[in-house]
Amino acid sequence: MVKHEDLSLLNKIEYPSDLRKLGVDQLPELCRQLRENIVNELSVNPGHLASSLGAVELTVAIHYVYDTPNDRIVWDVGHQAYGHKILTGRRKRFCTNRKLHGIMPFPSPNESEYDTFVCGHASNSISAALGMAVAEKKNNGKRHVVAVIGDGAMSGGLAFEGLNNVSSTPNDMLIILNDNNMSIDRSVGGLKQYLIGLNTNETYNDMRFKLSKWLHSKGYLEDDRKKGLIRLGNALKSAFSHQQNIFEGLNIRYFGPFDGHNVKELVRILRQLKNMSGPKMLHIHTVKGKGYEPAEKAATIWHAPGKFDVDTGERIKEDNNGKPAKYQDVFGHTLLELARTNPRIVGVTPAMPTGCSMNIMAGEMPDRVFDVGIAEGHAVTFSGGMAKEGLQPFCNIYSAFAQRAYDNVIHDVAILKLPVVLCLDRAGIVGQDGPTHHGAFDIASLRPVPNMTIASPMDEHELRRMMYTAQLPGKGPFVIRYPRGCGVLADWHCPLEEITVGTGRRLKDGNNVAVMSLGPIGNTVAEAISETEREYTGFTAAHYDMRFVKPLDNNLLEEAAKKFPAIIVVEDGVRNGGFGSAILEWMADHGHQTRIVRMGLPDSFIEHGTVEELWKIAGIDKESIKTELKKLT
Amino acid sequence: MVKHEDLSLLNKIEYPSDLRKLGVDQLPELCRQLRENIVNELSVNPGHLASSLGAVELTVAIHYVYDTPNDRIVWDVGHQAYGHKILTGRRKRFCTNRKLHGIMPFPSPNESEYDTFVCGHASNSISAALGMAVAEKKNNGKRHVVAVIGDGAMSGGLAFEGLNNVSSTPNDMLIILNDNNMSIDRSVGGLKQYLIGLNTNETYNDMRFKLSKWLHSKGYLEDDRKKGLIRLGNALKSAFSHQQNIFEGLNIRYFGPFDGHNVKELVRILRQLKNMSGPKMLHIHTVKGKGYEPAEKAATIWHAPGKFDVDTGERIKEDNNGKPAKYQDVFGHTLLELARTNPRIVGVTPAMPTGCSMNIMAGEMPDRVFDVGIAEGHAVTFSGGMAKEGLQPFCNIYSAFAQRAYDNVIHDVAILKLPVVLCLDRAGIVGQDGPTHHGAFDIASLRPVPNMTIASPMDEHELRRMMYTAQLPGKGPFVIRYPRGCGVLADWHCPLEEITVGTGRRLKDGNNVAVMSLGPIGNTVAEAISETEREYTGFTAAHYDMRFVKPLDNNLLEEAAKKFPAIIVVEDGVRNGGFGSAILEWMADHGHQTRIVRMGLPDSFIEHGTVEELWKIAGIDKESIKTELKKLT
Repeated sequence: MVKHEDLSLLNKIEYPSDLRKLGVDQLPELCRQLRENIVNELSVNPGHLASSLGAVELTVAIHYVYDTPNDRIVWDVGHQAYGHKILTGRRKRFCTNRKLHGIMPFPSPNESEYDTFVCGHASNSISAALGMAVAEKKNNGKRHVVAVIGDGAMSGGLAFEGLNNVSSTPNDMLIILNDNNMSIDRSVGGLKQYLIGLNTNETYNDMRFKLSKWLHSKGYLEDDRKKGLIRLGNALKSAFSHQQNIFEGLNIRYFGPFDGHNVKELVRILRQLKNMSGPKMLHIHTVKGKGYEPAEKAATIWHAPGKFDVDTGERIKEDNNGKPAKYQDVFGHTLLELARTNPRIVGVTPAMPTGCSMNIMAGEMPDRVFDVGIAEGHAVTFSGGMAKEGLQPFCNIYSAFAQRAYDNVIHDVAILKLPVVLCLDRAGIVGQDGPTHHGAFDIASLRPVPNMTIASPMDEHELRRMMYTAQLPGKGPFVIRYPRGCGVLADWHCPLEEITVGTGRRLKDGNNVAVMSLGPIGNTVAEAISETEREYTGFTAAHYDMRFVKPLDNNLLEEAAKKFPAIIVVEDGVRNGGFGSAILEWMADHGHQTRIVRMGLPDSFIEHGTVEELWKIAGIDKESIKTELKKLT
Repeated sequence: MVKHEDLSLLNKIEYPSDLRKLGVDQLPELCRQLRENIVNELSVNPGHLASSLGAVELTVAIHYVYDTPNDRIVWDVGHQAYGHKILTGRRKRFCTNRKLHGIMPFPSPNESEYDTFVCGHASNSISAALGMAVAEKKNNGKRHVVAVIGDGAMSGGLAFEGLNNVSSTPNDMLIILNDNNMSIDRSVGGLKQYLIGLNTNETYNDMRFKLSKWLHSKGYLEDDRKKGLIRLGNALKSAFSHQQNIFEGLNIRYFGPFDGHNVKELVRILRQLKNMSGPKMLHIHTVKGKGYEPAEKAATIWHAPGKFDVDTGERIKEDNNGKPAKYQDVFGHTLLELARTNPRIVGVTPAMPTGCSMNIMAGEMPDRVFDVGIAEGHAVTFSGGMAKEGLQPFCNIYSAFAQRAYDNVIHDVAILKLPVVLCLDRAGIVGQDGPTHHGAFDIASLRPVPNMTIASPMDEHELRRMMYTAQLPGKGPFVIRYPRGCGVLADWHCPLEEITVGTGRRLKDGNNVAVMSLGPIGNTVAEAISETEREYTGFTAAHYDMRFVKPLDNNLLEEAAKKFPAIIVVEDGVRNGGFGSAILEWMADHGHQTRIVRMGLPDSFIEHGTVEELWKIAGIDKESIKTELKKLT
């Protein structure tokens, strides 16, 4: 991409009302400028690049044709929505994107009236938009409702549940399927194959579109109540095309696929669909990373590339000199290492082979790794089925997305005590991706489930030992939670050794107070203790890395309860019902009066920012821990 | 149905191996006898009648053709599996079905090797069976894997996620779609319409089947790796039929629909499909309640009819003289009452209009009630979308099934504080439906979610007041949990009045100890206190009905903490992280040393039996509460 400096058209647009003053012939140039703006902004302030580049023409066409914010546009996930933000009053603040108190990482109604719903977890747009469209009918309103969903998100069960209900209730919603054959990694599954098949049948689809327009012009498709006529229309279209479309099978009129980068054509089509009553789907084909050559060539890497040099396309590596490896990579390498010696091990990931580094195992043993698409519930139940027949699945899901599989963990794993190892990456505060992505609720929601073992490693070696332990025979359902980002050790390599389930470690002894921590936040605790002891001569604090939320280490708890009048519990998860509550319960059940100070995430959704900034806001950073320690000196 | 006494064929069969000794011509008579046996057994020991009657021929044909238990049959939900149980060594014990320590309500591997997976929540069979089928390939085994799923369960997103993955990995699984156009109530949604369409195209489908057999005979469909040929096959079939099937669109070979009550035909078809490689679907059409006329005529009522007279078809009403109304009916009537005055109110139910009594409102205002099919996640997100546009949804989901919507509550309701009233019916121990159906985890899992109000009424009047309160402006996300079965009041009618959110009630004062209860178990607490006070002169206990899990009543807690050395907390939900933990946390956070005794469900899955029996096992029955009280006398 040659860098232009001419952003004169874009400069005229603060809101979509400005956009709508342009002539349609000006839109291609506007798209070019918008794309350039996105690339330049993200080169210095990292974010989700490739998806947003692919959606530039669509974004411009939507805001050109629809009367936003009165009309409702529901973006699915919102990786694709940077153009939308820039065109809806947020261009000047876009340099604050993903920063603390800056522009939010995904569209949110808390930020702008142009953002109509929460989008952070895939596949919810159809259901939410259907709710809005049905409400609009009930309110006798005239506004239009549009859901924009990617083909990756379409693999989620929630999207299907939405699709299955679209035709059940009178509504005029439009679903735009933005199909780039990618989620973050390449899309998988039968539907993806199906969509590719549709793409190769353009002639038929073009004929169908013309036929549908003809039927529409004759008034055959006007009245929603005349379902019979709609079916007739589908039957006619089928007769022409020798193919009934899946979406038409679900009673949703289908149009496409069209080129999603031809903005003038998109405007023409959207204008036709806008006033067509009843639910309908527009299928467009886009290229992730479109218009910026490096991103087009390697869309997975350029999904969120970090900083880069616009001209050379060189990604600016963060200075990793001496920086420890990421937890996800330690997971990935260790999984491969275990799989080499344990032939029962298989890997399951819902569309995150790169994100969780399971691609390391997939590289060497592709037939033992299953990328099931964005389908967290299926990932867990499928793992349960494999475990039932003697395999040892490692199912890796980001903590926040695992909320989608809560029932599957209970019903399809825990009841039968199946040996599924559920690795929850991105547990705790994740940083810039904000409230939808923090892995806050995993401990509190999974702890009450019977038959579960729940562990969290304080460092990379502990992660490896926990993974080794989890795959030993007889361990049952085993959760290992660990955070986004880098570990703490210079070298993550270490022998694989069993940890006795339900045992923690006393890292240091002390006299005044005990601190019990779970997971990597224990490293911050260690620093806080060390600094406080230096500052307050004579004060010493014991530090326990408890390792297991469940089962708890009775011996360590007994020891601490007898020795210390107060115990501070620190975790990177919600205080309500979390690890600290487990210790509180244990103390109450065992008749101890030890005072328990619980430090964890508060009872509110935490915004976005760096992990350090958010820990401070949540009150679990080093200074906050020191403050609690000082109260007990 | 005329009552026959001849069960001579059935008497010969203890296990499927006995069944396979019969000639195929004997199977229709065996089906008649099996059906009679089911009807007679259920007339005296109630259970799920209509689904199991509809699956008689399918059950016999499967066990006749497949080498069970070596081959794996995965039943979805398992309402349909009584015939399966009777034919697999459990006929003599079938009279104990659903009773404490008796035959389990749904198939379970913990009971029989013929039961291959947990089935209680709909839509998991394809994912679980796919896991088994993939494991079989990995193990180089020869056993067959069959999933049997109803059309109702097929509307669940998990089933779609499974379907979407079926063709991604080499496997030979068979999916049998047992289509009776019903879940418990009539099926809904686009897919249901689609399946009806398929049923009216028998000629085309017959032609497709013959073509597929021909392709198979020529070896075209033998090799899974030749995906191209399978697609060719589908294309050829489409060319013949002028219709591409949804399932074939997902790369699953489709056969059907066939008459699911022609057992000899089913045997013939299953034999052909058994040795066909690659994934395939058999679509059969059955009648819920088949063969027992009263059940055929009113399948929803006869889903689980209670006791009945076999000859007259008269259902034997339980003696309801003076018995209070069911909580679900109080919900249903109150919802209608509220909806009459608040035009913003709409009702949402995932396939349970009868089960939750939302049919009462639907009868008067059908366009304001949405039955979305078995799709709990969509039900919540759809409610979120409607709430965003100013409607006031009451979304009613059985507590255990709401586990499916955990992420939707967090992501699509709580973050935006949307005013969705989530009514959790069947909360706590439900009785005979057993471990998959107990509503044990709702309090513990939802309590950590920010912005939620969580309440539970002690009686019918309180339920009405909470519903009234929840729909007042500005209340945000509001959970009301209440149990299965009858209330406690002679007359549930009462004026609708607001309860101040976060306030409990001191029902009686006392001197020795306080008991804090949540929900209807408070009535048992009241009895326990009353009896204990009579037995121990001078002993008095205060009783607080706390009403709200969140927010807690600070004033009452402060009062009790100051006055009593010990507080007993009683709830019908898991102890770990539950309501008792909330109080424990409050005491710790507020510096109180009050001893807290938490009574609730233990950290194990509770079996099936009557609620009374199970409360005793769980240690939350009246005697257990009295025992705790006595410790403090």
